Amino acid sequence: MKKIVFKPIGVIHSVFTKAKGTPIQPAAAGGAEGEVEVFKEYMRGLKDLDGFSHIILIFYFHKVKGASLTGIPFMGKKERGIFAIRGPSRPNAIGISTVRLLGVSNNILHIRDVDILDGTPLLDIKPYVPSFDEKKKVRIGWLEDRIQKLDNATDDGRFTV
Amino acid sequence: MKKIVFKPIGVIHSVFTKAKGTPIQPAAAGGAEGEVEVFKEYMRGLKDLDGFSHIILIFYFHKVKGASLTGIPFMGKKERGIFAIRGPSRPNAIGISTVRLLGVSNNILHIRDVDILDGTPLLDIKPYVPSFDEKKKVRIGWLEDRIQKLDNATDDGRFTV
Repeated sequence: MKKIVFKPIGVIHSVFTKAKGTPIQPAAAGGAEGEVEVFKEYMRGLKDLDGFSHIILIFYFHKVKGASLTGIPFMGKKERGIFAIRGPSRPNAIGISTVRLLGVSNNILHIRDVDILDGTPLLDIKPYVPSFDEKKKVRIGWLEDRIQKLDNATDDGRFTV
Repeated sequence: MKKIVFKPIGVIHSVFTKAKGTPIQPAAAGGAEGEVEVFKEYMRGLKDLDGFSHIILIFYFHKVKGASLTGIPFMGKKERGIFAIRGPSRPNAIGISTVRLLGVSNNILHIRDVDILDGTPLLDIKPYVPSFDEKKKVRIGWLEDRIQKLDNATDDGRFTV
């Protein structure tokens, strides 16, 4: 099937300059702040975004070394299917994170709970809407007895160059 | 900045063959069922996914006509910044939907609450994990007084060819 080509609309700035030690999810980021720099030609698209408290960032895992169909997740010890884990070594290296939007100044978004590596290319921004994005009666498979370790989980650099 | 190239890992099958009339979000899909066909070469990546009740599908809005920096959302009448709405006419035409996973048979995922057009190219699958994906104390900007209309909202074909 045909290839699909995207172009970054911006870049994410954070205090995490190396994969090792970067929080693995916004919920484990301990309030870390960062900035999303949206390239000026896309600035008009940010209109009305400041009314939302949370936004979904879709980005490219630019530092990942190769793709794999299985991986050992940061929060586990067993090899799992790549689509059953959230790690970056995926066939299409797309990441999503829902972060808190603190404010918008021109083309800069000030964000909190950042679990994203500094310099990450941004592909899209969507407003987070609980009626769309929250589900009830959820089962979380292999994560069921591991999720309580989330607060202390950080990247150990295993997936990156 | 450099282009980013992805390759579909599968295709989404649904009863919605035209944008017009397609539900605009899983929550408005009234339980519509569908299938995700993951191409066989990626099947090994589905291991362990069946433990999860919900999955996040990341896909390409393949029928969209052009990109725009503003748009009138299905649930509103005013022009909004494209990053403050969820419609498909985005600089990078990436869609995300969290759907219910009913079961996995080889390379086929049986799903419910499908708001996705038949034939849509699939880019990634992630397990839905409330601790990662749910946020509290949320403000939803311009949607605040419109969200109660979600049940009846369908696509009117405005964004597609």
